[in-house]
Amino acid sequence: MVLTTIAAERDAAGRCVRILDQTRLPLETVFVRLATLEDAAHAIRVMQVRGAPLIGATAAYGVALGLQQGLPLDTVVATLAATRPTAVNLHWALARMRRALESEASAEANIGGADVESQGDGRSQNSALAERCAAAWNEADAIAHEDAAANAAIGRHGLELLKPIAARKGRVAVMTHCNAGWLATVAHGTALAPIYAAQAAGLDVHVWVSETRPRNQGQLTAWELREAGVPHTFIADNAAGLLLMQGKVDCVIVGADRIAANGDTANKIGTYLKALAARAHGVPFYVAAPLSTIDFACPAGAQIPIEERAAEEVLAGPLAGFAAVANPAFDVTPAGLIAGIVTEHGVFPAAGLRAAQG
Amino acid sequence: MVLTTIAAERDAAGRCVRILDQTRLPLETVFVRLATLEDAAHAIRVMQVRGAPLIGATAAYGVALGLQQGLPLDTVVATLAATRPTAVNLHWALARMRRALESEASAEANIGGADVESQGDGRSQNSALAERCAAAWNEADAIAHEDAAANAAIGRHGLELLKPIAARKGRVAVMTHCNAGWLATVAHGTALAPIYAAQAAGLDVHVWVSETRPRNQGQLTAWELREAGVPHTFIADNAAGLLLMQGKVDCVIVGADRIAANGDTANKIGTYLKALAARAHGVPFYVAAPLSTIDFACPAGAQIPIEERAAEEVLAGPLAGFAAVANPAFDVTPAGLIAGIVTEHGVFPAAGLRAAQG
Repeated sequence: MVLTTIAAERDAAGRCVRILDQTRLPLETVFVRLATLEDAAHAIRVMQVRGAPLIGATAAYGVALGLQQGLPLDTVVATLAATRPTAVNLHWALARMRRALESEASAEANIGGADVESQGDGRSQNSALAERCAAAWNEADAIAHEDAAANAAIGRHGLELLKPIAARKGRVAVMTHCNAGWLATVAHGTALAPIYAAQAAGLDVHVWVSETRPRNQGQLTAWELREAGVPHTFIADNAAGLLLMQGKVDCVIVGADRIAANGDTANKIGTYLKALAARAHGVPFYVAAPLSTIDFACPAGAQIPIEERAAEEVLAGPLAGFAAVANPAFDVTPAGLIAGIVTEHGVFPAAGLRAAQG
Repeated sequence: MVLTTIAAERDAAGRCVRILDQTRLPLETVFVRLATLEDAAHAIRVMQVRGAPLIGATAAYGVALGLQQGLPLDTVVATLAATRPTAVNLHWALARMRRALESEASAEANIGGADVESQGDGRSQNSALAERCAAAWNEADAIAHEDAAANAAIGRHGLELLKPIAARKGRVAVMTHCNAGWLATVAHGTALAPIYAAQAAGLDVHVWVSETRPRNQGQLTAWELREAGVPHTFIADNAAGLLLMQGKVDCVIVGADRIAANGDTANKIGTYLKALAARAHGVPFYVAAPLSTIDFACPAGAQIPIEERAAEEVLAGPLAGFAAVANPAFDVTPAGLIAGIVTEHGVFPAAGLRAAQG
């Protein structure tokens, strides 16, 4: 069974989107209905949906919801673009929606001969709006389905990296960070896709799941792996160095929020520390991400904006306001520490991404 | 004002020990009275007292409490030695107590001519027990007071490392890990002693305080620094790499639980990740610890036992039992990553500790 985080639906009130509310996991499995642009923007902002690929898909559906409300495309795109600054998939999905809708509009203009003067025709205007909405829903569906397919391919390519380790040692221990499983995508996951593929292929795979403070997304990874029956052990982020030193980790696989053209990779804060420790102990460190995560317009990691999130994520409850807090949500792992980037088109050296573009 | 974590007292019920219960900080300042060996062992085990030097002092007072109860010295020492495996100061303090009490016993034997036959004399036996108790209290007080004095000296030596940075940049940003402040010692602290000395010397010092999962001892550090008026910023442990990459850290100073003869240093889990990141960015990484932390009987870091603590420290409350957990409490930073060990007798290269012994 392929589990999905997001799906378009049609109910009595019209077309809408159904998401799994990840802020309630792992204790509660609650689905939320998104009916408006603001619902979609809110879901991204408060991290009911999170993970770069899923943020992209949610933003695409958010465009469809906004147009359905009759809002101007520019407003819709600007609202969604402002939700989270680091994930490039968000901007990639919005640009793709805009291109699709603009080509739809111009195709319509050519075929129907619509021009400024025909705007007085109410029926034709309604029909154009309806067609534009339909095009938005179709494109958002395409983005979602392509993400699921890309991740399945990432799983197949990543599996080839795990097989030789399993063949040599009889088992393979993978460390991951944050959640880059099916919860972070539309389906399958990125960093966890090779693990699910390894399980399906009968490999003896074990996963070290890092808590991932301050948002504890490791709990989501543990929840996913438990649901899937993949053996795993939960650790504080701080334990990663010792486990690598002790030889208990065969490879590290993480996702990515944005990959610069030179291969430098922004991912959840703490990723860089794992990459440094993996290097210190000769353990390969892989990034698994669809090609849409690569930002060829961004030359290097230093140009990737790092989102600063609320202090209350770090010091909450009675401790809120107890101390000044810095809460950068991402860090940048230099390409030189990355053994390979696992994409839907194969594994590329981080320093050779231009090949992937071609 | 010199703040202390532990002090011997005499109340209506006899001699006892008063400690600050660190499991209640930072939200509540609660003092606890230790009246028995088991009180002292419990305080160490559940981390009402923590930090290698303070564990040592508490164990020393625990010996006095046990003898006061009339328990055999061997039982008392064995009970205390079993509380926490990693901190060498615990064993150092117990060995010192044993030496003091054994020399006391033999001195008594010489002076008073006490021998096996005199044991029938009840008054003499009571008096011998009372003298032995007094000797234990005296030696424990000596250990406590010497710790405070050693830490003040660590502060003076560490200050000399911060002065050139402050002279060059006008300010100095120090990153620390866990709590190695006065709360971790009898007074002054180890890693924080140079920071308090810098503040007293009028340097513009700022501290990056790492949360230190799973036990969140960073909250203790923030509490200490707030009480002392030292500017600081609280961060998730995961943020350390990015801050170092961004040039926001001038040096890292941490404490130590055990330093092997070759300079490899066991400290709170996560320390090693900070040392790797400091090295990657050319930032000096110092260990501040009294000489009693050096275990010359332990050749290298690989021989230091790493305490595995309860899963509930990592996944608590409704999440307890949600996933298998590994919870190593310490990791080992190789001597090669350590710019210097700041002791009460000066700063030694980690690889040249034998000089400190001499």
